[in-house]
Amino acid sequence: MVAFSDGVFTVALTLLVIDIAIPTLAKGSSEADVMNQLGQQMPNILAFVLTFWVVGLSWLTHHRQFQFIRRYDGRLLTLNLLFLMTVCFIPWPTAVLGHYGEYFTVWVLYAASMTAMGFTAAAVWVYASGRPSLVDHVTPELRRYYAERAVVMPTVFLLSIPLAAVWLTAGQYSWILIFVILRILNYRHRDRIAADLRPLV
Amino acid sequence: MVAFSDGVFTVALTLLVIDIAIPTLAKGSSEADVMNQLGQQMPNILAFVLTFWVVGLSWLTHHRQFQFIRRYDGRLLTLNLLFLMTVCFIPWPTAVLGHYGEYFTVWVLYAASMTAMGFTAAAVWVYASGRPSLVDHVTPELRRYYAERAVVMPTVFLLSIPLAAVWLTAGQYSWILIFVILRILNYRHRDRIAADLRPLV
Amino acid sequence: MVAFSDGVFTVALTLLVIDIAIPTLAKGSSEADVMNQLGQQMPNILAFVLTFWVVGLSWLTHHRQFQFIRRYDGRLLTLNLLFLMTVCFIPWPTAVLGHYGEYFTVWVLYAASMTAMGFTAAAVWVYASGRPSLVDHVTPELRRYYAERAVVMPTVFLLSIPLAAVWLTAGQYSWILIFVILRILNYRHRDRIAADLRPLV
Amino acid sequence: MVAFSDGVFTVALTLLVIDIAIPTLAKGSSEADVMNQLGQQMPNILAFVLTFWVVGLSWLTHHRQFQFIRRYDGRLLTLNLLFLMTVCFIPWPTAVLGHYGEYFTVWVLYAASMTAMGFTAAAVWVYASGRPSLVDHVTPELRRYYAERAVVMPTVFLLSIPLAAVWLTAGQYSWILIFVILRILNYRHRDRIAADLRPLV
Repeated sequence: MVAFSDGVFTVALTLLVIDIAIPTLAKGSSEADVMNQLGQQMPNILAFVLTFWVVGLSWLTHHRQFQFIRRYDGRLLTLNLLFLMTVCFIPWPTAVLGHYGEYFTVWVLYAASMTAMGFTAAAVWVYASGRPSLVDHVTPELRRYYAERAVVMPTVFLLSIPLAAVWLTAGQYSWILIFVILRILNYRHRDRIAADLRPLV
Repeated sequence: MVAFSDGVFTVALTLLVIDIAIPTLAKGSSEADVMNQLGQQMPNILAFVLTFWVVGLSWLTHHRQFQFIRRYDGRLLTLNLLFLMTVCFIPWPTAVLGHYGEYFTVWVLYAASMTAMGFTAAAVWVYASGRPSLVDHVTPELRRYYAERAVVMPTVFLLSIPLAAVWLTAGQYSWILIFVILRILNYRHRDRIAADLRPLV
Repeated sequence: MVAFSDGVFTVALTLLVIDIAIPTLAKGSSEADVMNQLGQQMPNILAFVLTFWVVGLSWLTHHRQFQFIRRYDGRLLTLNLLFLMTVCFIPWPTAVLGHYGEYFTVWVLYAASMTAMGFTAAAVWVYASGRPSLVDHVTPELRRYYAERAVVMPTVFLLSIPLAAVWLTAGQYSWILIFVILRILNYRHRDRIAADLRPLV
Repeated sequence: MVAFSDGVFTVALTLLVIDIAIPTLAKGSSEADVMNQLGQQMPNILAFVLTFWVVGLSWLTHHRQFQFIRRYDGRLLTLNLLFLMTVCFIPWPTAVLGHYGEYFTVWVLYAASMTAMGFTAAAVWVYASGRPSLVDHVTPELRRYYAERAVVMPTVFLLSIPLAAVWLTAGQYSWILIFVILRILNYRHRDRIAADLRPLV
């Protein structure tokens, strides 16, 4: 199950690169033409980098949660499969964003996909961590801490949609907040949550 | 072997998204044009979602069966490889369905692929579970329960073909029955099959 | 290392399907047009099926050998990486064969790729199995048995090239021999090699 | 974590083959035409082979290092994710190099990507190996040995950029040095670093 989720993440992350296009150059193009053509892939590359970090972060969170989730029932499996579906879907909105980032509609598609992925991940945690039959060593404090972490990303993306409606660029850069807020959360909980050093599995 | 099967499933599931196209927009397209173009991918997205759930469900079933299959012989390996071939094949009929769902021929291709995948999975179980040299802790009851579960999906898809011949839309939506029937099976066997809580591996 | 090899195999097998094309249909195409268009993908599908089985078989062989190979040195790693490179390469000749199977040149490309994959796999086994520092429980008999199995596939593909030069169709169907010869080998060694029942890992 | 990295590597390696194109042949093409068309994919194939070995080598190095890294903290996770992002990115510069290898700009893109991948990998090792809380059994000597090995590849690629500016072909073949230098390093350290025989995991 964990191995399966890991597999979906790795493939989805690796597929992100597929939509960065190989330029088609006319014969006799100069070095400047080439540089220009490659430069036009910049928005695609930025979309690749942003998505890689958001999805990579989701994987980290997912992975940490599953250090506590030790058993599963049918509903958890279904929820987790729903979550993995949103992960598999991500390469498409990423590619669309890389090509047509100047449209508000495209940002809605991208941000909504990220929101769906994030809230499904949060639902997996909230569902499992509240059932002692499924998890081990989960204190109410730890449960809340991980739930807070999990909702940061989708909340920021959700709020970025109305923001982008009035000011597109601001909406598109609001993801920076995710990393800022997670850092603050980390800092606030550093004394309550024990040392972050964990055995490598 | 289990890891190998898991790998094939993850990659196949993730490849499903590749055939959702990135629209090509003329310069100066309006937001309405973009929404329209993205909307035209809706059938592809629906095909992605449907296939994800059917294949995801097959993975769950496969995974559960292999909690009992503890040894293998040459024939089981061959059967399992045949099953994995049908899984690897799925992205193609899915993409064709997403593009040309209005044709009966296309539904035949899709439903037949699903039928082949489902019956091969059932064959793996029936073959292995009948050989005490290959499985542990399989009672006749459990054997039948999993066999019943395994044939639900391919049977529904098989029957959907003649149904689609007379009424295409009804045929194409008959997969809803799969989830209904599985739920009923679950309910009927809930007292006989012990608690569905299993250690997470 | 084994997990890594498994991963390469799964992805390569799954990528095979990518080159089966989605037909482009004009508006108002009839069911017969659709069937016709899909039928034109038949050579691609056959190439997919053939390659799936040859590569799947290679994976089985590789997997069995690594039940005996318990340690590795630098040279084994390099050989294995060389082998994995030939596996990763396979989707290309397969796609070319699916599109232009009527050319002798294309068969040379395909058969040569398979030959390279097969002999590299055999080299991995011959190298490792001859070094007691790398393997456990390998008798000279077992060493020879696996070596014989490993060279069957590449030898048949190698010989298919001159055969295809004089009679293309015969060359292209000579892979049937692989499955026949392996079956005979299995039969001849059935008493010497102990029961084929192995724990599932 | 290790499994995740392995997964990213396997998918990235396997994706490399996707950009080797399937030629489009006019009806009635001769065998010579086919050979000619396939021959035009030669630069793509060479780019595939070169990248496969450089990335494969990086995987080996990464894998060896993680035999010593037994625990992780937040910063190591972030560094490792950064490293995996550079790995996922590689198929794009490889494809561009395969298509337009005659441009200096393209070499800069390719060599810079490799340099980024290599130095990030080195950073992972330098960070982790200097913290006794993260690693086991790392002597200062071993730390230096692996650090030296890790910087060889990116340094050669970095220096190949100015070299390619004055003499493109020389720059493009300077990667040969990587294999030469690693071999010398191996030889020099053979007595200090204990036997290279390791259990297969």
